[in-house]
Amino acid sequence: MTIETRCDGRRADALRAISIQRHYTKHAEGSVLIQFGDTHVLCTASVLEKVPGFMKGKGEGWVTAEYGMLPRSTHSRMDREAAKGKQSGRTQEIQRLIGRSLRAVIDLSALGERTIQLDCDVIQADGGTRTASITGAYVALVDAVRGLEAKGLLAVNPIKTAVAAISVGLVQGQPLLDLNYQEDSSCDTDMNVVMTGQGGMVEVQGTAEGEPFTRTQFDQLLKLADVGIQQLLAYQTQALSQS
Amino acid sequence: MTIETRCDGRRADALRAISIQRHYTKHAEGSVLIQFGDTHVLCTASVLEKVPGFMKGKGEGWVTAEYGMLPRSTHSRMDREAAKGKQSGRTQEIQRLIGRSLRAVIDLSALGERTIQLDCDVIQADGGTRTASITGAYVALVDAVRGLEAKGLLAVNPIKTAVAAISVGLVQGQPLLDLNYQEDSSCDTDMNVVMTGQGGMVEVQGTAEGEPFTRTQFDQLLKLADVGIQQLLAYQTQALSQS
Amino acid sequence: MTIETRCDGRRADALRAISIQRHYTKHAEGSVLIQFGDTHVLCTASVLEKVPGFMKGKGEGWVTAEYGMLPRSTHSRMDREAAKGKQSGRTQEIQRLIGRSLRAVIDLSALGERTIQLDCDVIQADGGTRTASITGAYVALVDAVRGLEAKGLLAVNPIKTAVAAISVGLVQGQPLLDLNYQEDSSCDTDMNVVMTGQGGMVEVQGTAEGEPFTRTQFDQLLKLADVGIQQLLAYQTQALSQS
Amino acid sequence: MTIETRCDGRRADALRAISIQRHYTKHAEGSVLIQFGDTHVLCTASVLEKVPGFMKGKGEGWVTAEYGMLPRSTHSRMDREAAKGKQSGRTQEIQRLIGRSLRAVIDLSALGERTIQLDCDVIQADGGTRTASITGAYVALVDAVRGLEAKGLLAVNPIKTAVAAISVGLVQGQPLLDLNYQEDSSCDTDMNVVMTGQGGMVEVQGTAEGEPFTRTQFDQLLKLADVGIQQLLAYQTQALSQS
Amino acid sequence: MTIETRCDGRRADALRAISIQRHYTKHAEGSVLIQFGDTHVLCTASVLEKVPGFMKGKGEGWVTAEYGMLPRSTHSRMDREAAKGKQSGRTQEIQRLIGRSLRAVIDLSALGERTIQLDCDVIQADGGTRTASITGAYVALVDAVRGLEAKGLLAVNPIKTAVAAISVGLVQGQPLLDLNYQEDSSCDTDMNVVMTGQGGMVEVQGTAEGEPFTRTQFDQLLKLADVGIQQLLAYQTQALSQS
Amino acid sequence: MTIETRCDGRRADALRAISIQRHYTKHAEGSVLIQFGDTHVLCTASVLEKVPGFMKGKGEGWVTAEYGMLPRSTHSRMDREAAKGKQSGRTQEIQRLIGRSLRAVIDLSALGERTIQLDCDVIQADGGTRTASITGAYVALVDAVRGLEAKGLLAVNPIKTAVAAISVGLVQGQPLLDLNYQEDSSCDTDMNVVMTGQGGMVEVQGTAEGEPFTRTQFDQLLKLADVGIQQLLAYQTQALSQS
Repeated sequence: MTIETRCDGRRADALRAISIQRHYTKHAEGSVLIQFGDTHVLCTASVLEKVPGFMKGKGEGWVTAEYGMLPRSTHSRMDREAAKGKQSGRTQEIQRLIGRSLRAVIDLSALGERTIQLDCDVIQADGGTRTASITGAYVALVDAVRGLEAKGLLAVNPIKTAVAAISVGLVQGQPLLDLNYQEDSSCDTDMNVVMTGQGGMVEVQGTAEGEPFTRTQFDQLLKLADVGIQQLLAYQTQALSQS
Repeated sequence: MTIETRCDGRRADALRAISIQRHYTKHAEGSVLIQFGDTHVLCTASVLEKVPGFMKGKGEGWVTAEYGMLPRSTHSRMDREAAKGKQSGRTQEIQRLIGRSLRAVIDLSALGERTIQLDCDVIQADGGTRTASITGAYVALVDAVRGLEAKGLLAVNPIKTAVAAISVGLVQGQPLLDLNYQEDSSCDTDMNVVMTGQGGMVEVQGTAEGEPFTRTQFDQLLKLADVGIQQLLAYQTQALSQS
Repeated sequence: MTIETRCDGRRADALRAISIQRHYTKHAEGSVLIQFGDTHVLCTASVLEKVPGFMKGKGEGWVTAEYGMLPRSTHSRMDREAAKGKQSGRTQEIQRLIGRSLRAVIDLSALGERTIQLDCDVIQADGGTRTASITGAYVALVDAVRGLEAKGLLAVNPIKTAVAAISVGLVQGQPLLDLNYQEDSSCDTDMNVVMTGQGGMVEVQGTAEGEPFTRTQFDQLLKLADVGIQQLLAYQTQALSQS
Repeated sequence: MTIETRCDGRRADALRAISIQRHYTKHAEGSVLIQFGDTHVLCTASVLEKVPGFMKGKGEGWVTAEYGMLPRSTHSRMDREAAKGKQSGRTQEIQRLIGRSLRAVIDLSALGERTIQLDCDVIQADGGTRTASITGAYVALVDAVRGLEAKGLLAVNPIKTAVAAISVGLVQGQPLLDLNYQEDSSCDTDMNVVMTGQGGMVEVQGTAEGEPFTRTQFDQLLKLADVGIQQLLAYQTQALSQS
Repeated sequence: MTIETRCDGRRADALRAISIQRHYTKHAEGSVLIQFGDTHVLCTASVLEKVPGFMKGKGEGWVTAEYGMLPRSTHSRMDREAAKGKQSGRTQEIQRLIGRSLRAVIDLSALGERTIQLDCDVIQADGGTRTASITGAYVALVDAVRGLEAKGLLAVNPIKTAVAAISVGLVQGQPLLDLNYQEDSSCDTDMNVVMTGQGGMVEVQGTAEGEPFTRTQFDQLLKLADVGIQQLLAYQTQALSQS
Repeated sequence: MTIETRCDGRRADALRAISIQRHYTKHAEGSVLIQFGDTHVLCTASVLEKVPGFMKGKGEGWVTAEYGMLPRSTHSRMDREAAKGKQSGRTQEIQRLIGRSLRAVIDLSALGERTIQLDCDVIQADGGTRTASITGAYVALVDAVRGLEAKGLLAVNPIKTAVAAISVGLVQGQPLLDLNYQEDSSCDTDMNVVMTGQGGMVEVQGTAEGEPFTRTQFDQLLKLADVGIQQLLAYQTQALSQS
């Protein structure tokens, strides 16, 4: 593993500079600007005192997510999805992933019949927007839950453990942690891993963009992801320890 | 005119705290975060080397705008327009207004056959998002034009003069400058005024929400708007004087 | 102010030939064909015994409007909005304006929990379709209200005063009243003014299409609009005085 | 066959009052207001100097139709299709029928590479809107073709013969010609017949709304339709003989 | 009438090989694969314990149909309607026809407040998909009704008689039964006929694709259709007599 | 690992009955009905002599996929996506996965500037529709490529190796191969694995539906998937060895 391969000077197993800023906007019950280097995502959590139709009458809550990119968050301008009149397959895939990841760490019965709606909007993109979204959305979710607790609306804390996500990939055969856009565009294999604060795996999505990958490479990537996620969990804890 | 009427302690003829931050994101040719108090709008300018179909072959350029609100920029969460599959009438009305206002101060022939696309995305809303959008979009437009000039792509500067916008309104009969959300919700008349750096009027849109307004009140409002726009033009000049 | 400037021989301060024909179609509670010269708009008012969701349970009524153009009402054929699957921004802007203008003169509490739906459909277009729509829709609204009164469904007349609208513009620096299509296409400034029967202003929308306009020009235009609206109010009164 | 059965006093084999008014609006190349009693349809023909993609390069023209109903053309208000964002199955069925019927009488090769677009918009509906549309659209088509001829753009007249359409139906077992809305709503069988000026059949669409119909009844209905169409052809000829 | 005219060696009055296979898939209450030669349609009947809004509270049931073609059921691939975001006019026309045809033979009062939803999906197309759909959907409908009867949910059998459909057409002046795709593409007149088991006519839709047709030809076609439908009714009876 | 846990009597490491039927429909260049037990998917391959816009001028081909479920392929009827006007997020996710998986084994340069479009339509669903789709689509792709070779249109065989897919999951802690619907609905973790004929991994998508999974469980699942895929590759080879 050689240091000099990465375009931004990072070691193969290094995260980009991580920043988690809570209370970023004033209306949302949780509002977090998370930065993975030049990738900046605003994650808000909104508490809605209703549940979707398919959850009605079960005495349980719901957690769901939507995802969007500002048209010029990217290198060249993307068409605005609202103007095109539909969300792309990629957008839907990402927002479903965020929703599933968050639901994996929350006890919906303990939440009561309400919805926490996460919105992850990419202000600036440089690779890894879905992993930054999951990692930031967790912090926004905790802030929203703390708000409900402060109002005495929850008997027990519905959050079972933390959740964070990171990308790993093979670039010219070398496993790299937390790919930026340039690396992501040229990698052979791209993998997103979501894990909990207790070490459980929630999602593993590995895709060979070029050459198929071997089982050995897969194991290397999973190990690298684990290293990154432990650090992200620590950043989350630190951010949430501040008032 | 009494000071104590305004919920945030402002004088009737005072703007909110104005902030204009250039180079806010890194990909766009112009990128400005503008704040009118708690209203925060990210305005980006993207240079596209093409023009829409109806402008092809005229040897002229085009300037257009799109507008959006993040779902939780508002007090209670709004549905995401991309998920609903269409932009509301209000959104379309605002983005048409922004586009017209910017086109009023640019010489499309001098721009060459290219488009400058403005995107105004509301990060946090507290009234006046359309006027902040126009005022900030002008600064982003200038940065995009400067970039074209730096590349030697423009023979003459296509920007004829500056443009800025402000809202004024009648609240309980009193003319107020730069309404925040609470004032905007309770006002009898709401007016948006767009003026150029040379004192010309580009748009005047006055609407009686409750009682119709008189010609005298209308004149008072126009005068108040002029006061605000002169200050906004100064903020723009100051922001653009920095490197 | 010179008479000879206008393509159709009118004086600068003259309306086109105005015609208001009530009971134009047989099913609607109000049905008015209004003509501003070659601009012909069919305005119908439909009484619906329900209110939209956001008005339910308030004990109040609602007045709203939709606007459309027949595909060949215009010089060259426009695509049919129903076939394109969406209404343009212009259409939405106009129908929101019509709705606001009518609501400005009706007491929604006195209307009871019902909706009066105005439909303004342009049969033939020659400029000024939105101002003809507002002026004609008012007459259709009165007929619908009279029908409710005749059935004993209203305790008091909910209509507070009349409302009418006209366009004015600057063509080669000269203020003109009631622009036709040719004038509208070549004007520097286009302004639509909506006023009530009591002289109050409801909407003022002035737009510089080319050069910005001065405060002096603005005042000239407002004055000219007032002249036109007084005449339109008289035409409305006359039409409504017939059985 | 008894006279007294019909709600409007007509004989079973009588058409409603027919009126065909040419040059109804001023922009379209053909513009016809056709009335079958209280059913009023505006049929315009627009000449477009292009053909749809699937016809390009064949050296032939195209004739097509669109159909719409004004929201309050009907007894109770219908939702506006442009606002709903799609045309109903019924609308599409009717506009396909109108297009096919007109194409049956025109020689597309003789038309040259251009499209004649028919728009049939129902101003007031009382049954039989599709048959009135076909009958009126033919007259508008002829006017559009005459315009092309007058400009010397056609070597030979592409119109082979006239085309007209009528509805017939069984009401309480009795065959009736040209059903109005009340009859149409209560009939057992509804049939629309399209025939040419040379006696050829172009479309026969018979539908049992209640009880199935017998072969004998079917023959009676066809015969009645033929009677009506001969009269409609005469009305068309008369209208077209005026300048 | 000459045998040698048909591309597949059939006599002019011969159906293609007919096959009706019940219980084709396992989830639906009725599931029938019907084959008219190389035209294969899967018809399923689903029992839903609800009725559409416009039927609520009437104590009656509803029968409706949807139709689709697999993208490569046809000679060259068609765009997928789900991907295009709308059903074509042709699709809507066909599914409306199927629904009407089935409703003609069922007593909706006897069905109770439930819906039987028919889905006709074309696996392979070679002409006549709508007539195969109607003929197969009837068998699926019977199976669904038998299932309701077996559960004791119906007091009386709501099915009044059978229904079947066939196409006939004029190819080079000769009347042919049950057109395949090649014949359908080259025919002058195409007619679809729907009849009941008691000889009543439910739908007759004749269209001149090229030359108009005469009354004599029309009678020949109707007679030929009757021959075909009698055979289809026998195939249905035979299929339904098996367990 | 106990045999008795599975509802259908299978061993934990057993596939369902696999059937691959080529030439299932007659129009498509490749047409395969694949069955994984009660899951039946029709996979067709269509050769289109064009490439999408973003691939034009590169001298390369494209392979893409669409996926759909017949409305009553499932236990209870699903709404038809064509009628709803959009494809669900799940549908888009699956069709993107199928496309990526097939592109992993084809040399797009060797294909020439043409597209092979795969359509995977679920006739009957009982879990594992996406893995059956990938496995069957590969066979259809080979048939389409063989057709191009037979016409002499390919210089070299663009297919680099085979590709197949299978699902594995943890049900009550036990790893199971090839989940049916009942197992899929109750599993804690669901994983889809796509591998090539040379043992390379193309996609691994593991999702914890309930409890997160451990690294040890993950390794067990991957091993089980490998067992299943080796068998599927053999079924593909066998099917393709027949004429």
